[in-house]
Amino acid sequence: MTDHEYTVGVDFGTLSGRALVVRVADGHEMASAEHAYPHGVVTETLPGRTDRLPSQWALQVPSDYVDVLRNAVPEAVRRAGIDPADVIGIGTDFTACTMVPVLADGTPLCDVPDYRDRPHAYAKLWRHHSPQPQADRINAVAAQRGEAWLPRYGGLISSEWEFAKALEIFDEDPQLYGVMDFFVEGADWIVWQLCGEYVRNACTAGYKGIRQDGRYPSQEFLAEVRPGFADFVADKLEHPIGRLGDRAGSLTAQAAAWTGLPEGIPVAVGNVDAHVTVAAANALDPGHLVAIMGTSTCHVMNSDVLRDVPGMCGVVDGGICEGSWGYEAGQSGVGDIFGWFVDNCVPEAYQVEARRRGLTVHEHLTDLAGRQRVGQHGLVALDWHSGNRSVLVDHELSGVMIGQTLETTCVDMYRALLEATAFGTRMIVETFVASGVPVTELVVAGGLLKNELLMQIYADAVGLPLSIVPSAQAPALGSAIHAAAAAGAHADVRSAATAMGKRIDAAYRPIPENAVAYDRLYREYVAAYEWFGRGNDMMRRLRRIDTREAVGAIS
Amino acid sequence: MTDHEYTVGVDFGTLSGRALVVRVADGHEMASAEHAYPHGVVTETLPGRTDRLPSQWALQVPSDYVDVLRNAVPEAVRRAGIDPADVIGIGTDFTACTMVPVLADGTPLCDVPDYRDRPHAYAKLWRHHSPQPQADRINAVAAQRGEAWLPRYGGLISSEWEFAKALEIFDEDPQLYGVMDFFVEGADWIVWQLCGEYVRNACTAGYKGIRQDGRYPSQEFLAEVRPGFADFVADKLEHPIGRLGDRAGSLTAQAAAWTGLPEGIPVAVGNVDAHVTVAAANALDPGHLVAIMGTSTCHVMNSDVLRDVPGMCGVVDGGICEGSWGYEAGQSGVGDIFGWFVDNCVPEAYQVEARRRGLTVHEHLTDLAGRQRVGQHGLVALDWHSGNRSVLVDHELSGVMIGQTLETTCVDMYRALLEATAFGTRMIVETFVASGVPVTELVVAGGLLKNELLMQIYADAVGLPLSIVPSAQAPALGSAIHAAAAAGAHADVRSAATAMGKRIDAAYRPIPENAVAYDRLYREYVAAYEWFGRGNDMMRRLRRIDTREAVGAIS
Repeated sequence: MTDHEYTVGVDFGTLSGRALVVRVADGHEMASAEHAYPHGVVTETLPGRTDRLPSQWALQVPSDYVDVLRNAVPEAVRRAGIDPADVIGIGTDFTACTMVPVLADGTPLCDVPDYRDRPHAYAKLWRHHSPQPQADRINAVAAQRGEAWLPRYGGLISSEWEFAKALEIFDEDPQLYGVMDFFVEGADWIVWQLCGEYVRNACTAGYKGIRQDGRYPSQEFLAEVRPGFADFVADKLEHPIGRLGDRAGSLTAQAAAWTGLPEGIPVAVGNVDAHVTVAAANALDPGHLVAIMGTSTCHVMNSDVLRDVPGMCGVVDGGICEGSWGYEAGQSGVGDIFGWFVDNCVPEAYQVEARRRGLTVHEHLTDLAGRQRVGQHGLVALDWHSGNRSVLVDHELSGVMIGQTLETTCVDMYRALLEATAFGTRMIVETFVASGVPVTELVVAGGLLKNELLMQIYADAVGLPLSIVPSAQAPALGSAIHAAAAAGAHADVRSAATAMGKRIDAAYRPIPENAVAYDRLYREYVAAYEWFGRGNDMMRRLRRIDTREAVGAIS
Repeated sequence: MTDHEYTVGVDFGTLSGRALVVRVADGHEMASAEHAYPHGVVTETLPGRTDRLPSQWALQVPSDYVDVLRNAVPEAVRRAGIDPADVIGIGTDFTACTMVPVLADGTPLCDVPDYRDRPHAYAKLWRHHSPQPQADRINAVAAQRGEAWLPRYGGLISSEWEFAKALEIFDEDPQLYGVMDFFVEGADWIVWQLCGEYVRNACTAGYKGIRQDGRYPSQEFLAEVRPGFADFVADKLEHPIGRLGDRAGSLTAQAAAWTGLPEGIPVAVGNVDAHVTVAAANALDPGHLVAIMGTSTCHVMNSDVLRDVPGMCGVVDGGICEGSWGYEAGQSGVGDIFGWFVDNCVPEAYQVEARRRGLTVHEHLTDLAGRQRVGQHGLVALDWHSGNRSVLVDHELSGVMIGQTLETTCVDMYRALLEATAFGTRMIVETFVASGVPVTELVVAGGLLKNELLMQIYADAVGLPLSIVPSAQAPALGSAIHAAAAAGAHADVRSAATAMGKRIDAAYRPIPENAVAYDRLYREYVAAYEWFGRGNDMMRRLRRIDTREAVGAIS
């Protein structure tokens, strides 16, 4: 390898794609470029139509992903000032379980003129939550049959996942379901566009496709879910698996024309944004829990043991890298809770003062909250404004603020919410540990690591050293690392991550007196967590008190 | 009685006194005047001193009360445009259990030059909460001895009451305790100033002085509380009792000079602001629960049955009027919770919009909240920001907001707090009913009745017709009614109230579909009430997580 060999990592997010050019020798980030999806997230009407989509729908237009290849990749290379001929490979990561229904040649059904007015012909974004009834049915049958794979997913599969989304098509547009040749992860569809090969990545096949020990759910199981759905795996899902960091194929002439990169260079097997970040953090060793913190938090971690962990999202052999069990868990609301609070709960005087200081309201509140002693505000909150992913797996839970007095300020409540999300992470860590999966260190990536108070609260409240990933484009860096492995510039993903990943070790350490106070506050969080999360159905009932609303939504 | 006979009612509140001139024949309110206490509430330093008072202290200067007689009374008479010679009597009401330590002639100890620098020489305002350890001791001994009077107070006496406040003097300034000849309710002290006679009113003697069935707590009981305190009742508290609405004495020459009223006119026995309001509402019949709603709410009601009602403030024979059992209960935070929310939880955009509409933020939020269907917001709150008086009697409880999502607005939370206080009243009503004391109607007086949405919510959430008292000076009107009874213009308080009181019957009635939805929401309130209020000590612990703070407060 020379000092002027590069790979390109492309991170496909919810609203845009970001390309990053990385030096293979040391992971130096040369330049990046972003391209927003022209159609964004389609929640109201299909392109060119006026009839409304149902509630909870979230679609995308796959050609938008190709636009990222056409625009962001060449722009990043141009900004990097390198010779495109020095790019030796490309890797990609994607949102998890954004599903594209396609013909046998990979053409999305929504690109077929006959189907472009059919909602089920479009890509269903990860957060397309309408197939909850389908997920409920799958869970009920799996639990009743005692399916062996169910504990690998904490006991519940999600409405976001492949089977629920496919069953929704089967139930609601059976003709289109019959036309669909494959139901493909976006992560794999974009690789297919790059190299002309459909290779199913081991990560999403395991976490979202319920592939365990080399098998998908059985035909008998699927027949019990819906008789006509029995052959879904055999007909539309099963496909050769690619290991993460392996070469899926070579860049086609067409994709070379789109990207400006050399035809024939290796294209890495597809992957997921959170999971590639573990490589970006060079945190592939067991016990390093990588938390990608933004509007929500995804936790991913390798381990050398296989255990059933209640309420995790999944455990997959080789799901993060070959040779380890990859665990995933998550918090469905983190940064979006802080954003909601700032938008809805902060009085004028604080907003005026923030402007006077030239700070955002977040920065102003964080500064004031940072002057408090732990526990001074007398509050404890539950961070369930977006529901709870791990460990309760219940999207109908909601937020709680306990302990308000006439002296309580918005600063107090803001800090209580920061702490609540830290306790949410601690609950996940403790659940791993109690299940026999050790956690020794938190590794944080993502937009929220710029909030130093939040990071110190996480170290104090979780009681672990907290490392950070000093990259604004950690997933794209992770994809570039996988590209370097696929290109053979490094022996495998681990050695590529060692050379190219970056982490500031123990950037924050628990402050002992804070940790003691948080131990006490956390006990109150746990008590409230148990009572509201497991002890009763109050939160579900609260959503249904207004019966007229519920009737309106159904009709 | 002629059409030009009048009485004057004077209402002594926390920050000011208000005098009202009322026509005896029909209760027509002629004019009123207010005079603020020059010293207000003394919480920081004694007059002329610089050393700080301890936390939770709240004192007053008794000469301020006389200033009200000198200023507000003649001003109200002047504004009424009547001949002062047509005033046939004067009555007063006072905050309950504001206690004045005096010499045998009624001179407050703080007016004796030797004692003016002694904090315990001043009047202790009702909300002087520092004697909690004394109250705890009294409660513990009473419970252990099984004192028969304890259930008459819902099982607990308060730090606000006569015995706790007196024991605090005994413990902290025993020499001053020795000098004190009487420990006098402000309600009786002001009557003493008017007529030169110390007459102890039946209301506070019962509710605050623990006088039941003609007896105070025994010498044996007091000796067990503190040996040297055994003779407190006999030495400093016991005194002839005056029935409410009776004549305590005649206006002295000096008081006639202060007030400009005729010397020798009848002065009514002292009374309490909440309790006289029952007469103002002409709601002396059993089952009419009168709620005086302001920063807090006091509930008072006559009944013809004596029952132990858990968590009420007290039941006293003749405590509201002769011949009935007078019950009292309360909510320690109501309007102050709404005020806290507006000051601390409403974002700039709502404040700007309220100004644009020329509304207060309360009015703007109320208007928006009034457009919601019951239960639409999906929230339930606990209204304990100031603790809970009835039925839990715990000042260390705190507020809770349950059910927040990323769609929750400040309007939702404001409405949830309005509803929470209504549920707090329903809990009190249901506790009365479950104890065998019927409640048939809510009667609301006080500043909050101008909020029509709040009134409708109370009718809907409690499920009772709600009457209102259309007077801005209901307590002063009640005092004027008692003055008319004392003057013999009407046969007794009941007939005076019939002639002079005012109430708009069933101004609000429960809307059936709202009542059904509130029945469901109330069940959630009760579940949270039980868990936080009786099921665990979380809220007390939350106040003590910050151990450094606690240490600082003790040292």
